[in-house]
Amino acid sequence: MPKTVTLGTGLAIGGDGFVVMAGPCAVETRELLLGAAQAVAAAGAVVLRGGAFKPRTSPDSFQGLGAAGLELLTEASRLTGLPVVTEVMDPRDVPLVAAHAAMLQVGSRNMQNFPLLREVGRQRRPVLLKRGAAATLDELLLAAEYIRREGNEDIVLCERGVRSFDPTTRYLLDLAAVPALRRRTDLPIVVDPSHGTGDAALVPPMAKAALAAGADGLLIEVHMAPEQALCDGKQALRPAAFSALMADLRRLAPAVGRHWVRADARTGTIAAPRSGAAARDHLDDGVIAP
Amino acid sequence: MPKTVTLGTGLAIGGDGFVVMAGPCAVETRELLLGAAQAVAAAGAVVLRGGAFKPRTSPDSFQGLGAAGLELLTEASRLTGLPVVTEVMDPRDVPLVAAHAAMLQVGSRNMQNFPLLREVGRQRRPVLLKRGAAATLDELLLAAEYIRREGNEDIVLCERGVRSFDPTTRYLLDLAAVPALRRRTDLPIVVDPSHGTGDAALVPPMAKAALAAGADGLLIEVHMAPEQALCDGKQALRPAAFSALMADLRRLAPAVGRHWVRADARTGTIAAPRSGAAARDHLDDGVIAP
Amino acid sequence: MPKTVTLGTGLAIGGDGFVVMAGPCAVETRELLLGAAQAVAAAGAVVLRGGAFKPRTSPDSFQGLGAAGLELLTEASRLTGLPVVTEVMDPRDVPLVAAHAAMLQVGSRNMQNFPLLREVGRQRRPVLLKRGAAATLDELLLAAEYIRREGNEDIVLCERGVRSFDPTTRYLLDLAAVPALRRRTDLPIVVDPSHGTGDAALVPPMAKAALAAGADGLLIEVHMAPEQALCDGKQALRPAAFSALMADLRRLAPAVGRHWVRADARTGTIAAPRSGAAARDHLDDGVIAP
Amino acid sequence: MPKTVTLGTGLAIGGDGFVVMAGPCAVETRELLLGAAQAVAAAGAVVLRGGAFKPRTSPDSFQGLGAAGLELLTEASRLTGLPVVTEVMDPRDVPLVAAHAAMLQVGSRNMQNFPLLREVGRQRRPVLLKRGAAATLDELLLAAEYIRREGNEDIVLCERGVRSFDPTTRYLLDLAAVPALRRRTDLPIVVDPSHGTGDAALVPPMAKAALAAGADGLLIEVHMAPEQALCDGKQALRPAAFSALMADLRRLAPAVGRHWVRADARTGTIAAPRSGAAARDHLDDGVIAP
Repeated sequence: MPKTVTLGTGLAIGGDGFVVMAGPCAVETRELLLGAAQAVAAAGAVVLRGGAFKPRTSPDSFQGLGAAGLELLTEASRLTGLPVVTEVMDPRDVPLVAAHAAMLQVGSRNMQNFPLLREVGRQRRPVLLKRGAAATLDELLLAAEYIRREGNEDIVLCERGVRSFDPTTRYLLDLAAVPALRRRTDLPIVVDPSHGTGDAALVPPMAKAALAAGADGLLIEVHMAPEQALCDGKQALRPAAFSALMADLRRLAPAVGRHWVRADARTGTIAAPRSGAAARDHLDDGVIAP
Repeated sequence: MPKTVTLGTGLAIGGDGFVVMAGPCAVETRELLLGAAQAVAAAGAVVLRGGAFKPRTSPDSFQGLGAAGLELLTEASRLTGLPVVTEVMDPRDVPLVAAHAAMLQVGSRNMQNFPLLREVGRQRRPVLLKRGAAATLDELLLAAEYIRREGNEDIVLCERGVRSFDPTTRYLLDLAAVPALRRRTDLPIVVDPSHGTGDAALVPPMAKAALAAGADGLLIEVHMAPEQALCDGKQALRPAAFSALMADLRRLAPAVGRHWVRADARTGTIAAPRSGAAARDHLDDGVIAP
Repeated sequence: MPKTVTLGTGLAIGGDGFVVMAGPCAVETRELLLGAAQAVAAAGAVVLRGGAFKPRTSPDSFQGLGAAGLELLTEASRLTGLPVVTEVMDPRDVPLVAAHAAMLQVGSRNMQNFPLLREVGRQRRPVLLKRGAAATLDELLLAAEYIRREGNEDIVLCERGVRSFDPTTRYLLDLAAVPALRRRTDLPIVVDPSHGTGDAALVPPMAKAALAAGADGLLIEVHMAPEQALCDGKQALRPAAFSALMADLRRLAPAVGRHWVRADARTGTIAAPRSGAAARDHLDDGVIAP
Repeated sequence: MPKTVTLGTGLAIGGDGFVVMAGPCAVETRELLLGAAQAVAAAGAVVLRGGAFKPRTSPDSFQGLGAAGLELLTEASRLTGLPVVTEVMDPRDVPLVAAHAAMLQVGSRNMQNFPLLREVGRQRRPVLLKRGAAATLDELLLAAEYIRREGNEDIVLCERGVRSFDPTTRYLLDLAAVPALRRRTDLPIVVDPSHGTGDAALVPPMAKAALAAGADGLLIEVHMAPEQALCDGKQALRPAAFSALMADLRRLAPAVGRHWVRADARTGTIAAPRSGAAARDHLDDGVIAP
């Protein structure tokens, strides 16, 4: 029986549902964040993502707004009703981030930052654990075990691409990791096609492929104006492209035995997953006004 | 406008259709081959695959039946009506293989075997060109260009996994290659999830993911008794599992804008692809009685 | 003009000298540590390595002795006169580790742990920065830049192998990184053939190769009884094998234009490097009595 | 007891000697080839390399002079007295290439071209077998076994870099392959630092590192005017740089227990390898006047 991870708002990740988490790579300005948050909520995303503390390869790159970014995420969450997932990089920041986020993200570069894993294991928020760019699935599962040992079992695993030799894509998205992990763990598994390809044009097909491969959800970067983004603009979808993708995903979900999770879903009140002819009658379930 | 590659039987690969090519890794015995051929035809495959000349890492491994294997493939093709795709490894064997096969496969290990590429470019059968395990997409496209320069433009590209570091899977199936190639070529693109994972349990989810990622077809290994296979038994599906996968794929195809190509399809007579509600009424199009 | 990094004891890393840092992977017991420390000092190592805080893939593996391990390292340092390099994993531990070590190691898994990089940049001990297993040289240099920005310019870079596809070795030691980095930075560059191969039998040839490739030094694991080691025993040399390797390295150093740095060397008092015939007369320079 | 592979001229590869094979990537013009051949002979190379049949990623790239190139290689061999190693790509060309070359090279892209391996196994010239860019050492040894099974045991293995993720170098030169192979085979092992790095500036340090790692020889690209080369000019050394490297290698060889093989060496007449003080007196052994 697969485990579901329930955010404080009652939203469940795992099981038969399919969830989309979306938002900008980084919190940059209030206007851009609130715009993106409203856009992804309107399109049917159920969790808002966005980074306040950003791990950047170069010290010259934008490092995130820090605590001020967390405040903006809280405001965006209140405005849209979406719970927030955001990254924590420093074990000393865990209490601060946990005060603002419904789920704490441990990023790819920190998958084997064991003091951080232990610290997020000692608090009560669910954790989104991203696979390292050179980590085997064994290593990912053992990293999750560091969190679990401290008492926190609410862990969502995230495939986000591994290092490989072809410069065509930024990383090589390993979708076979989804069914391969499924055999070995009951934890929910989501996919990040934005980092996994580094290329906005490749995000929609890989998002659909992730759903078909059996993922429990997606983490997608959406930006109001990708060409102005301070972080990873090349891989961010515009709201219109994201909305079109969401329509495709809603149509696809029942064909692979998944029901579409709506933002107002609450644990225990989600209708049983439908399949076959019945499911096709309910495609519109997923349409979320406005 | 995407190119379609038409086999001698009239079957078209590319465009809006989705084709499944299936059969054993290697031709081993008449009984096993005919059994597999009938099983994959019954389940809706439209091309029979099977190797008579096998490139094996070790000289101690089964090397294929050679010319005798080609005869058996011809018999299986007559029995089922399915055209055959089979590998050619030696430029000197091209005429012989072309006399028995509807499509010539250039395997992963030979993607940069330039004398072989030129030789298959000089004959008139379509060519299935598999990506090398360490080849970039640039290199794959340039390999195709070697074939095209000799006058043969009927080339189908095949993603089949690249070398990576995690021993969980035999190769790492690079599904982002499908949309990334699509931007750069009008050639049809198929995916081989059997070699791409090396693990029968991972083939169905990755086959569905390939369809959702935009592939024009699949190459799948099916064996009557994988535990007795002389070649790659771990990655072969049994007929029952293949049949179940085919049912899933038929259901999925219209949800991603694809129509299901039947074995009796002929170029020019295929109905236009349907989408939306209409497509859902025609899911049974794909059901092919044995 | 290449930069040299000088430890508190006066020992300089970089320039024309060649330094060997050696010791056990982890501090396990007082007896094993002191034994290894004396053995590596006797063989001519000039820095003692050993981990008190260990980043281990599995939470079930030995995690190091922590603060107690640091005390033992201090005792071993006093006994042998060798300065200590040891890993720090948690930004909160930096002051504690800096109180016991002459040089702080940032391990491979933490190369992009930016809070940790900043913290070691804010204290005054030299830092040994190991390349991540999937890090490009660009990324390694930018990680060093995080440290430098905080005011600490005493950084030694360490190549220790990258992830690759052949299970023959644990990692693939990238010796071309040594001259490739040399063109781009004035920081000293050392090589860790123990982690870089994961195999004690491969350590001596790769240690010599690193010297010939232009490295400024080595980081080598030595254990009194590798078969009993709690950590990475397969890659540790026994004292006798280490001593034989050191004799080979001393013979080799002048042939590649390097002088052998002795444990009692002090900045400013090291004789100029010799080359040609003169150097050959002084091969015995490197013999250091215990 | 390690096997030595003896070329028709009597030159032995393997054992305690160290051999350098050098020349241009491709035979381009008579003038350039003879110039390079004389330069590498003068500097002490003992085998001339150069490609007449070139495997090129793009069909638009220079494909080699073919049979005319073989004639030029024969002329260069006569002029300098150096035996020639050159690549054969097509099984149908084996007799032609064998008529002109002392050793047949099977290139990296053809390591698993089994018809070619069998064909070179059926003739009597020694074979230089290069490791594929994504081949494990197991696979390299099994490829050699294909040659040996046909009756030809005179095989020299060549490490030339594997595909990896850092664009700093063209390939990642895996020097640990040298001692790792040594444990598993008695065949001689040489290293190609030119293809292994793709960068002329990195060739000298990696050539020295290969010698120190235990290689039996090197394969180095030398071109009279690299900036005008039709093939891989970026990785070719000019004659002066090659000559300087050869002086360094001659100095280094005795320090790692190797004697320097001269062009006029004949099997059975090579003096026993010297070591220690005696070796140092004979450094000039290797100086070969043009």
